Amino acid sequence: MTQTPPTRQRQIVYARRPQGVPTTDCFQLVQVPVVRPGPGQVLVRNDVLSVDPYIRMRMEEKDSYAPVMAIGDVLVGRTVGQVLESRADGFAEGDWVVGRLGWQDYSVAGPGELQKIDVALAPATAYLGALGSTGVTAWVGLMAFGQPKAGQTVLVSAASGAVGSVVGQLARLKGCRAVGIAGGASKCALVKETHGFDDCVDYKAPDFAQALARAVPQGVDVYFDNVGGPILDAVLPLLNNFARIPLCGLVSQYNETEPYRVKNLREIFNRRVTLRGFVLSDHRDLWPEATRELIEAYRSGQLQYRETIAEGLENAPQAFIDMLAGANVGKQLVRVRGA
Amino acid sequence: MTQTPPTRQRQIVYARRPQGVPTTDCFQLVQVPVVRPGPGQVLVRNDVLSVDPYIRMRMEEKDSYAPVMAIGDVLVGRTVGQVLESRADGFAEGDWVVGRLGWQDYSVAGPGELQKIDVALAPATAYLGALGSTGVTAWVGLMAFGQPKAGQTVLVSAASGAVGSVVGQLARLKGCRAVGIAGGASKCALVKETHGFDDCVDYKAPDFAQALARAVPQGVDVYFDNVGGPILDAVLPLLNNFARIPLCGLVSQYNETEPYRVKNLREIFNRRVTLRGFVLSDHRDLWPEATRELIEAYRSGQLQYRETIAEGLENAPQAFIDMLAGANVGKQLVRVRGA
Repeated sequence: MTQTPPTRQRQIVYARRPQGVPTTDCFQLVQVPVVRPGPGQVLVRNDVLSVDPYIRMRMEEKDSYAPVMAIGDVLVGRTVGQVLESRADGFAEGDWVVGRLGWQDYSVAGPGELQKIDVALAPATAYLGALGSTGVTAWVGLMAFGQPKAGQTVLVSAASGAVGSVVGQLARLKGCRAVGIAGGASKCALVKETHGFDDCVDYKAPDFAQALARAVPQGVDVYFDNVGGPILDAVLPLLNNFARIPLCGLVSQYNETEPYRVKNLREIFNRRVTLRGFVLSDHRDLWPEATRELIEAYRSGQLQYRETIAEGLENAPQAFIDMLAGANVGKQLVRVRGA
Repeated sequence: MTQTPPTRQRQIVYARRPQGVPTTDCFQLVQVPVVRPGPGQVLVRNDVLSVDPYIRMRMEEKDSYAPVMAIGDVLVGRTVGQVLESRADGFAEGDWVVGRLGWQDYSVAGPGELQKIDVALAPATAYLGALGSTGVTAWVGLMAFGQPKAGQTVLVSAASGAVGSVVGQLARLKGCRAVGIAGGASKCALVKETHGFDDCVDYKAPDFAQALARAVPQGVDVYFDNVGGPILDAVLPLLNNFARIPLCGLVSQYNETEPYRVKNLREIFNRRVTLRGFVLSDHRDLWPEATRELIEAYRSGQLQYRETIAEGLENAPQAFIDMLAGANVGKQLVRVRGA
């Protein structure tokens, strides 16, 4: 790794707020000088970038759980990469790291913003997905808020997605019946065959409501919801008493200018359900336990993940737009340099 | 109390399922023989009857949290009354008791179905309201699920009602800002002047949304919801991060044949809110602590309650119908024998 440090790099900056579905002109690729690391900092060459649904919320005009991005900001996102130059203790050239380093070729960061990762244990990209914030999100929502007990039924929306696929596998490890909801027959097959769910229901099928009821003959004890909207409405009447709904996201709603209006909320009362919105960044204390269990499941072969990788930073906006529309399988990533 | 035991009595039985708003022909007054108490039982003369919103849910065709009533069943409800004849240890003629003894002149019950009450400490009717299941409902929802902290804002719907009025007073005792929502200026005045809330907002006023926002300048940390529907929708955007919504009832929805569709559910996610439906009967373990605190508050003059009392068992159906429409102030009761 005795490369000449680069002088120029690419960034993708936020150019325009979307109305509804984002378009590529909401983003702009710019060339900027590479900032040199100061004392106590490192320069990271970003290798792979993670694009996630939460970014859509940060494109709004109004703050949600996180502050919105300003026009001109570098797009937010986690990356894995290698240290190119270190002026910080504990980091050496060549170390692999993960952090929220943004949509760009190179990033300067302090040690508090970076975690070293073990690429001998698992591929670097796993630390953006099943062994990283995605897997921890699944773990926190399911274990801390879903509190599944052996023999109960755990239902997951967006089950072929990065978070959903981990939720079902963790539920199986806890002795639960894991049932997914996904869009289309091939995603449903993946959820069952690759991720080992007991069943998966296609929400695009005309008999969705009946198929869903058949798939949960004992009712639903935990509904891990990634999507909100009409699917939440379809699930509410199937909940058991004292069911828990960890609400991890509302991906069906992010692009909607008029929100879907939920009809069956009375089931929350009738069934004494707990519906709880959560965001990973509030639960840093749970990372160590979550990571330990995820790595253990991965090493024993009980945590399978899939990735959809777009090639080239310039294609990150389209990858993000496609991911919001459900075109990805598993974790949506972007290889920064391209193939 | 050396009365001749009665031989005939009145009951109100469930005659017809309502479509929407119940009407008096859903109920029927019948004359039946008084059952004599067997060994281990007591005969109670019911003095005052409590009519509550939950009864409307038990008139549905489909079970909610409790089984529905069958046509011909005696209407459910708690009463206070006096023991007329005892064949059970620990109960003597003249003892005052409270229990779920139904809409009738006399009831036969076992000791497990009755609690003795101290009418020297408070009027018997208080044990149907602020010192009984109503007060305990308020306590459980607020303390166990709302978890208010000093300095936080507690908002309550149906604030002039039996449960809501207690919630606000308990919140004040915890050092919170207590804000009510009620229908009409006179109910709002009662909430502030009699029950000591910091503020109360009239949901029937044309500027309700703006007035509500003004009444909670620090946002809402606990929304104790008795009503659901459009008021819940109006409150959701005012919630603070990590707010709690104990959902105690949906009185705005019980008479609706088409449920109100909630628009602002995304705030549950954005603000990481916990929405939890609860029913008192699931939380018997909390009664002793709740009752102790309620009695303490009452004795110190910090728990004021109001009652609306209809006269005569034959008027219980109309009192129930009026209560659902919000005609009562505080606890809606019926004096069984009439004035």
